[in-house]
Amino acid sequence: MKIPKPIESLIEHFEKLPGIGPKTAQRLTFYLLHNPQEELESFANALTRLKSDTKMCSICKNIDIKDPCEICTDSSRDENVIAVVESPLDALALERTGYKGIYHILHGVINPLQNMGPDEIYISDLIKRLENSSEVKEVILAVNPTMEGETTSFYIAKLIGKLNKDIKITRIGRGLPTGASLEYADETTLGRAMEGRTTL
Amino acid sequence: MKIPKPIESLIEHFEKLPGIGPKTAQRLTFYLLHNPQEELESFANALTRLKSDTKMCSICKNIDIKDPCEICTDSSRDENVIAVVESPLDALALERTGYKGIYHILHGVINPLQNMGPDEIYISDLIKRLENSSEVKEVILAVNPTMEGETTSFYIAKLIGKLNKDIKITRIGRGLPTGASLEYADETTLGRAMEGRTTL
Repeated sequence: MKIPKPIESLIEHFEKLPGIGPKTAQRLTFYLLHNPQEELESFANALTRLKSDTKMCSICKNIDIKDPCEICTDSSRDENVIAVVESPLDALALERTGYKGIYHILHGVINPLQNMGPDEIYISDLIKRLENSSEVKEVILAVNPTMEGETTSFYIAKLIGKLNKDIKITRIGRGLPTGASLEYADETTLGRAMEGRTTL
Repeated sequence: MKIPKPIESLIEHFEKLPGIGPKTAQRLTFYLLHNPQEELESFANALTRLKSDTKMCSICKNIDIKDPCEICTDSSRDENVIAVVESPLDALALERTGYKGIYHILHGVINPLQNMGPDEIYISDLIKRLENSSEVKEVILAVNPTMEGETTSFYIAKLIGKLNKDIKITRIGRGLPTGASLEYADETTLGRAMEGRTTL
């Protein structure tokens, strides 16, 4: 007995997703077999429309239904501050903190091991954007505090420095997350927390 | 900033899948944003065709591209033995052991907490099948050794007993899995292993 082709085909598509192995892909597919056909069609429809009904904002590279995006056209946002993030999900996370500035989405980080160079992500668009703007006073490098994120931050900071503009470059704070305990913190995190201490 | 509708919609569909929470659903959706449109359409196509291109076998209730299925029409299979399993995936697992009998897929187990009664799964079809057949000599209850699986096994065994036919009813062996250690085995498993000991 082999797995029938229509089932095998869907399993293969699920397997391509990050974090989904062959067993999970099988489980999801056989679960969907018990769903009504309309549900499957609605799922399929959502997949087809994911990209065809969304646009990348030509200014900040965020994904939205219109270009320029909601944030870039919102006059209430503070255009003096740009937060540079890796992905739209990171922008969403910053939104929840009440951040009122604007964004620039890189869609990745420099990662030589995965063949991601500076030209594969939207760094040059950020530099051009800063070049042509007289409003930006601060660029917050809010990429993840990973090795690749640090490399990307340094690279971008160097390029912004070369612009010879009065732009403050900042990096999001490092230290212990809320609720953590010193005892279990790794030494790099604790070291950064000591460095980044603030006066009460 | 809200998540754009086309993105939100796909996230919601992923969230409905078992074992996929809101964060994973977001991550999968944003991962797919970086896939080419053809890939998304092929995925959508696989979803739509999952059920429309497959049939449930009218004999064993397995899912295949034809009805009756490949196994039920294969004359080389041993029609004297029927393995009763919960899902097509379980039948696939038994296939890998070299099992040469035929199957009956229940598509679930009796689980009152999830509103699954005996009529929600294909038990009466199994009984009818046994009633009308003179070939079946053994029914192997190969449902999972969970509480629900045991209940279902007992229920089916009772119904088969009432048929007054000379059918042997067996349950798959219980004990320690290959590679396990006695030290870490739970007491129920170890107890069953002692009960099911065999002479060398």
